[in-house]
Amino acid sequence: MTETPAARRARLMGPNVPTFYRTPVHLVRGEGVWLWDAAGRRYLDCYNNVAHVGHGHPRVVAAIAAQAALLNTHTRYHHDLVLDCLERLTATLGHGIAQGMLVCTGSEANDVAIRMAQAATGRAGMIATDATYHGNTALVSQLSTRRPPIGGRAPWVRLVPAPDGLRSPDDGTRFAAHVQAAIDDLEAAGIGLAGMMLCPVLANEGLPDFPAGFLVPATEAVRRAGGLVIADEVQCGFGRTGSHMWGHDRMGIAPDVVTLGKPMGNGHPVAAVLATPPVMAAFRGAFGYFNTFGGNPVSAAAALAVLDVIRDEGLQENAARTSLYLLDRLRALRHPLIADVRGAGHFYGVEFAGDGLAPAGDFVADLVEAMLARGVLVNRIGPGGATLKIRPPMPFGIPHADLLADALADALAATRVPA
Amino acid sequence: MTETPAARRARLMGPNVPTFYRTPVHLVRGEGVWLWDAAGRRYLDCYNNVAHVGHGHPRVVAAIAAQAALLNTHTRYHHDLVLDCLERLTATLGHGIAQGMLVCTGSEANDVAIRMAQAATGRAGMIATDATYHGNTALVSQLSTRRPPIGGRAPWVRLVPAPDGLRSPDDGTRFAAHVQAAIDDLEAAGIGLAGMMLCPVLANEGLPDFPAGFLVPATEAVRRAGGLVIADEVQCGFGRTGSHMWGHDRMGIAPDVVTLGKPMGNGHPVAAVLATPPVMAAFRGAFGYFNTFGGNPVSAAAALAVLDVIRDEGLQENAARTSLYLLDRLRALRHPLIADVRGAGHFYGVEFAGDGLAPAGDFVADLVEAMLARGVLVNRIGPGGATLKIRPPMPFGIPHADLLADALADALAATRVPA
Repeated sequence: MTETPAARRARLMGPNVPTFYRTPVHLVRGEGVWLWDAAGRRYLDCYNNVAHVGHGHPRVVAAIAAQAALLNTHTRYHHDLVLDCLERLTATLGHGIAQGMLVCTGSEANDVAIRMAQAATGRAGMIATDATYHGNTALVSQLSTRRPPIGGRAPWVRLVPAPDGLRSPDDGTRFAAHVQAAIDDLEAAGIGLAGMMLCPVLANEGLPDFPAGFLVPATEAVRRAGGLVIADEVQCGFGRTGSHMWGHDRMGIAPDVVTLGKPMGNGHPVAAVLATPPVMAAFRGAFGYFNTFGGNPVSAAAALAVLDVIRDEGLQENAARTSLYLLDRLRALRHPLIADVRGAGHFYGVEFAGDGLAPAGDFVADLVEAMLARGVLVNRIGPGGATLKIRPPMPFGIPHADLLADALADALAATRVPA
Repeated sequence: MTETPAARRARLMGPNVPTFYRTPVHLVRGEGVWLWDAAGRRYLDCYNNVAHVGHGHPRVVAAIAAQAALLNTHTRYHHDLVLDCLERLTATLGHGIAQGMLVCTGSEANDVAIRMAQAATGRAGMIATDATYHGNTALVSQLSTRRPPIGGRAPWVRLVPAPDGLRSPDDGTRFAAHVQAAIDDLEAAGIGLAGMMLCPVLANEGLPDFPAGFLVPATEAVRRAGGLVIADEVQCGFGRTGSHMWGHDRMGIAPDVVTLGKPMGNGHPVAAVLATPPVMAAFRGAFGYFNTFGGNPVSAAAALAVLDVIRDEGLQENAARTSLYLLDRLRALRHPLIADVRGAGHFYGVEFAGDGLAPAGDFVADLVEAMLARGVLVNRIGPGGATLKIRPPMPFGIPHADLLADALADALAATRVPA
């Protein structure tokens, strides 16, 4: 008897290792915004942000292959590429952020960033939202709310209510008041504030719609208390929002530390922490940090190729242009449960709600499957899992937007609305 | 004025980012056991274990390039390669270790392994040696002694004296007594024992010479207290010790969790945690762990290629054969400060000491530079930094051993012995 892929997976990986979709997709090939499964079926990828410049981009593949053949070593020797990469990245950043280190994952980057804030301030307290995810290390998972950390949450963590633009509109004043209360609480507990870590577009919170300047009062509260602002650009960086290379610039906030991850190497495991020199010095003084794979020449070559492709193919501009078009098409959809359509460049949320704005999570779960049946990969996020999450590779253009919108109209018509 | 590489590095990376050697080496190319610097000078690599099957091995490069062009995605979709990789790895492991997950770095692997022990036992206490290094995440760096963790060491860590075969020979009884005392102390503190993490050849402790079975009494003490044994195979795995694929089998101990890192992808960032099914289930039940880059098809292809090359080129056998020869040549060296010559396959220590076995660290520092001047890359480790550390890529053979031994004889003759 042949073992099914699911059975083989459970045998080798153990229980509770979820896949997407009710019947997992068995992907074997990718190109641009397209993916193919083992049966030869093609899917339009409207979800994967790791393959930022498109699946299997030949320039990134060539850069990885060439450098891997030439030399792959570590930063205990001099190598130009890691410095070229830091030079290129810091040149895109303002706010005095002029130094950095390469690591391998966004989780490693955020693990370092939290310690940077703690080293720079001499205090431990960290603020994040109560609907976030910043990574999987033991330290960073203290900030996650998807499942509480083993052994309970550390005393230095304060999670503030995530903004929900649909149910409780806010110009940023209420969010800042929550942040101030968390600061006061950390100080009253004798812990004090090290910093606040946020994804500038609040991607895991469901990409709430908020006015320009929304995060400014909260970051000002952090600064007044002597804390650091850490911008987790793992999801919103590298031009995804269309208007800006980095999410924090779109939101008009000035971070002390910026962390980068998923899209940075188009799938090659590379990530980064960028910081102001005083913050970097505080960290380097407190901690003998070395990362064997971090900043290896192959990772740096991959990251440089991604930056080249973003520039040469005008991918940020494509995201801005396509976003305007796709948002129009999404807003033209008619369905009784559509409560909100929003977007930040190539990151879109379509929120579904019933009576009294009750999250229509079950409906969206069915809708995601209906989209899969139509060969379109999307997913869901936000309060009650009721926001359709659309986050395609950056070369996703107007013809793809049409395919997506047509499929969504069809799927909406075919998906049963719960009684 | 042209900025020097060192100045550029300090400008972009900040202070306290050490390089090897008094004048850092600027490497640009590698092939097999050879490296070349920017001036075209060739070095015999007797140090780098990441390039396990040799720098730029064409089969590994080809596997990475082919899979990167085809598809690079994550384990939320089915893919055969991650399962093939786990199948191949678990087939080499005994002790009921039948499941695993791929991550990106040895640090991530050990960060997970500690949480596995804590989840499986419901207790927090971890034991390691007082001269170890298991990684750079906030959690794992709690076990490091090179620099104390920011904010002090956590209450659940107990560091036992590292064995020192030269100064205090031990058949394992004394080491086990230290471990038992740590267990008793954790229990008295109401913390209890989760497990013990060890590199089976104690690489960072200076690769002390110890008799077969040395670690058995200590691991038995851990088991009696209900704790888990975690074998950190990041340095000693993948056949390096010559006699065995894994260091724990060489040492005759049965781990519950095995972590893999550096050599696994020949420089590609891939690592793994392998465990028994009950331990994996405990972790997966307690923690919603997902690693975006972990187990991506390119990483799995790199790891599979490394396993293929180790087998097809007989690299474990080469390490065993060359080791016998090189140890003979090292033992034939005559120098007043040589106190011990030891090895475990392609991992060698030559310890230097003066009167009363005082570590001759300054001498070894000069010796490492003298070897560099002769085009041979080595380093130092162990008590007082007085052990010459030799850990070449696995294809290092008898002609290379002769080059190394000849250079070392010459460097020993040329290096001034401190008065």
